[in-house]
Amino acid sequence: MTGRNATHDPARRSWVESANAEGTDFPIQNLPYGVYSEGGGPRRVGVAIGEMILNLTAAEAAGLLRPGEPPVFDGGTLNALMALGPDEWSRVRAAVADLLDAKAGPHADLVLLRQDAVRMHLPVYLRGFTDFYASKEHATNVGAMFRDPENALLPNWSHIPIGYNGRASTVVVSGTGIRRPLGQIKGPEDMAPRLAPTARLDLELELGTLVGTPSRMGQPVTVAQAQEMIFGFVLLNDWSARDVQLWEYQPLGPFQAKAFGTTIGPWIVTREALEPTGCRHRTGRRRCCPICASRRIATTTSIWPSTSPPQAARRGRSATATPGISTTPRRSSWPITRSRAAPWRRVISWGPARSRVRPTTVAARFWS
Amino acid sequence: MTGRNATHDPARRSWVESANAEGTDFPIQNLPYGVYSEGGGPRRVGVAIGEMILNLTAAEAAGLLRPGEPPVFDGGTLNALMALGPDEWSRVRAAVADLLDAKAGPHADLVLLRQDAVRMHLPVYLRGFTDFYASKEHATNVGAMFRDPENALLPNWSHIPIGYNGRASTVVVSGTGIRRPLGQIKGPEDMAPRLAPTARLDLELELGTLVGTPSRMGQPVTVAQAQEMIFGFVLLNDWSARDVQLWEYQPLGPFQAKAFGTTIGPWIVTREALEPTGCRHRTGRRRCCPICASRRIATTTSIWPSTSPPQAARRGRSATATPGISTTPRRSSWPITRSRAAPWRRVISWGPARSRVRPTTVAARFWS
Repeated sequence: MTGRNATHDPARRSWVESANAEGTDFPIQNLPYGVYSEGGGPRRVGVAIGEMILNLTAAEAAGLLRPGEPPVFDGGTLNALMALGPDEWSRVRAAVADLLDAKAGPHADLVLLRQDAVRMHLPVYLRGFTDFYASKEHATNVGAMFRDPENALLPNWSHIPIGYNGRASTVVVSGTGIRRPLGQIKGPEDMAPRLAPTARLDLELELGTLVGTPSRMGQPVTVAQAQEMIFGFVLLNDWSARDVQLWEYQPLGPFQAKAFGTTIGPWIVTREALEPTGCRHRTGRRRCCPICASRRIATTTSIWPSTSPPQAARRGRSATATPGISTTPRRSSWPITRSRAAPWRRVISWGPARSRVRPTTVAARFWS
Repeated sequence: MTGRNATHDPARRSWVESANAEGTDFPIQNLPYGVYSEGGGPRRVGVAIGEMILNLTAAEAAGLLRPGEPPVFDGGTLNALMALGPDEWSRVRAAVADLLDAKAGPHADLVLLRQDAVRMHLPVYLRGFTDFYASKEHATNVGAMFRDPENALLPNWSHIPIGYNGRASTVVVSGTGIRRPLGQIKGPEDMAPRLAPTARLDLELELGTLVGTPSRMGQPVTVAQAQEMIFGFVLLNDWSARDVQLWEYQPLGPFQAKAFGTTIGPWIVTREALEPTGCRHRTGRRRCCPICASRRIATTTSIWPSTSPPQAARRGRSATATPGISTTPRRSSWPITRSRAAPWRRVISWGPARSRVRPTTVAARFWS
């Protein structure tokens, strides 16, 4: 684990004035990464600071940041940085914080842009994702909606992280239009299924975990190792067509009804930025397997109530999710800040590292 | 559709003598693509001919093939060729056949290697796949194994292609070792689940459809358009841990139990090579939606009984699949030849093009 360091110092201030404002989402302690373009130009990697974005592609080209060789910020995604691993993530974060520190002051080679003057893009190239079913309340609500309300939570839920592979090709950045899907629907009064636009479009607010470094196929990882593979987190909207889902989902689970669009926020808040915010998961102690027995480790190291899939993951529904319609975010690009993080974690029973471990017990692997 | 052309002419012979042998898997009418390396060298794209492989990377570098600019055979995968689309696929196939035709004779710049002297690799970079449940017999068998034998086939099966998103990161080339997975298992006599190696390792023989060109998110495609997007087919082994699956699969479907390994053969048989082999699917006429109403189109254009997912797809179980253990291939790199194709198609109710259309009705997309 990275632990607390100078990047978390609450007394730290930036020479970017808006980053020091009370209540800002982007103080110098946060520093989330994103990808933007300006006026139809090429995609650049940037970091959010107050109301501005610092162009990291330009800073690297000017020699002010040297994360790796070849350059990592010139590809229009965060993937090259993510592949470097946690030690390098930490060094880059410290270097970016130093560049933006009030004691440093502006530098002629640092390019700052207003966030409201650029277009944000999907920050990573995604090769897969898994949606985990992490919240007991949410699993119970959905179970009541689809099955028997008396036995809404299935027995396996308490023993292993339940999830399914989603469709990475339809993960898009917040603000992208999602078309209301057509699908086969068969209601209780319908004699036969009919093709129609969904009448039960649903939206869940979840948290996505971005896995930065891969595991090897056939090689299990520990909870602590899984934790180290997590680069950061994004807010995520999981769109669902509940009427289509009800007709299609047995026996093979959610498919088209949850594959027509998944929206993620443009800013990746790093695991390290959230380091000081850990809180306890609620799962009781169980001993049947390493995943279950790992509560103590997960409690001390797991920092975010979301899922962790191949490249971008999903899970961690809000405690206020209700059948039929779930919580919507305050705004679609809602950044994750420390003050908002804690309540979310407390509704989550299966943390991101433990959820990541389960795939490797069956010899599957994380994405590279 | 491409239709029959000179590449299908049964009278055609090659100057590679082993390609003219009775019963060969690789006559000049087949010409499947693969990726190989020799003695630890770089990956090359090749085409199988008799007992040999023609090095297409070298042929392109020598100017004997010019599929596109920049080169398409120098990346160590078939992806660049697949992205060119069906007209170019057809031109390249015709050009390769002409290079290998007995009337042409050997050329000094053509590099031939023995198939048994090289190592085969995964022929494509896969970004996702979907496993469809195409055979009525198989769906019934699995339903009886997991649920009520009296109601083994669920009502939705007859109306839409049922499937789930699989895990593309664990699709490997035939010959790669698959580790027996650990998983949580809870048998009828177990008081609690336990972590153990699967005792019910299963193997299905399926056919994978490789989608070459993408669709656009939110934009439905017709059955005919879906057909045109299909580059080719591979044989596929779908590995399953049935005891793990039984405990984990509700309510979200197959997950870890079917994600620890998927094996595909090294040779991609093109859709065009199979053009003369079409036969009827068995699905009855239904009219509720474009997928169901498309039987006539599918009958005339659908050429292979497999699935078609984002990049590499699965489906099309054998008619001889039985509960607990399914058919294994005659050999793991079993090539698809015309004489073997026909019986497979006849056990399939949902063809590859129709299965591809369903995702787009809900505004999802194929992979680019």
